[in-house]
Parts: sequence; C-alpha cells; structure tokens
Amino acid sequence: MAASEIMVNLNQKALELIREDADKILKLIEVQMENLIPRQCPLYEEVLDTQMYGLSREIDFAVRAGLMTRQAGKEILSRLEREVARLYEALNRQGK
Amino acid sequence: MAASEIMVNLNQKALELIREDADKILKLIEVQMENLIPRQCPLYEEVLDTQMYGLSREIDFAVRAGLMTRQAGKEILSRLEREVARLYEALNRQGK
Repeated sequence: MAASEIMVNLNQKALELIREDADKILKLIEVQMENLIPRQCPLYEEVLDTQMYGLSREIDFAVRAGLMTRQAGKEILSRLEREVARLYEALNRQGK
Repeated sequence: MAASEIMVNLNQKALELIREDADKILKLIEVQMENLIPRQCPLYEEVLDTQMYGLSREIDFAVRAGLMTRQAGKEILSRLEREVARLYEALNRQGK
C-alpha cells in the first residue's frame, strides 16, 4: 500500500471511531427519552458530561497525532452539542 | 517515505502523546505534594480522576485506531497507577 493511501485510511478510521463514540452519546439520550427519564436526572447528566469529555479527549488526541485537523475536530463536537440540545428540547416538550 | 516507516512514526507519535499526558498527571501530584495539599483534597481527587479517565479514553482510541496494542495500552495505564500510588504514599508520609 502506498504511504498516502495508509494516511487516508488512518484518517478515515479515526473519523469513524469518533463518529461511533458520538453516536453512542446520542443513543444514551434516546434511551433516556424512551424511558421518560427527566432531563435533570443527576446520574444521566453525569454520564453525559463524562462521555462528552472523553470524546473531546479522543478528538484532541487524534488532532495532535495528525489524524484530523483541529477544525474538523471542533466541527464534530459542535455538531454533537447541537444534536444533544435538540434532543433535550424534544425531551422537555415530551415532559410537558 | 515508505508505508511501514509512516506506521512506525505514527505509533511512535501516539506513544509520545500518551506519555506526555501521563507525565502531566504525575506533575499534578507533584504540585500537590510541593504545596502540602492533603491527599483527600476533593478538588484534587476529582481533577485526578478526570485526567485518568481522559487518558484511558485516549489510549482506548489509539488501540482501536491500530496505533498501539491493547497490551501496551494496559501497561502504560498500570505503570501510571503504580506511580500515582507511590507518590501518594510519599504524600501520606510527608503529612505525618
């Protein structure tokens, strides 16, 4: 395999892994919604915060290792934050 | 650069980044010792737990991306845990 091909594969792999972990976070909130667990459930809040922090550390590592740009990493995190906010808005409406 | 050379460089880079972060954690405890902050200081405990968790997520990511073996990742974490324990023992003795 050519060197450039290896880098493309690795960058692709890093992106996939990070998207997988972002999806797990969204899944967590979907489970919360399905089970009608209130938004301010402390256990859920803590798990979510921890997972978000973990993901931000993975992204930071991938950036420093040269597997993605800092810009791409930021975009993934802010897209996820928007998605989390959107789900929580839906959860709030559901709770009314 | 040859493909194998790129992989060796990347694995090396991943290892360096993780060692840097492990060193930061040890540094944190050294600062705690120098300032005679007691071991059970809640703020320090929380920061340390968070940093350890962050590092474990970076290592897990590096393993999944194929940048290091699971075994190597485990060894780094357990070496760090031993070092943290050793520093804390010294901190306990210091406090007597």
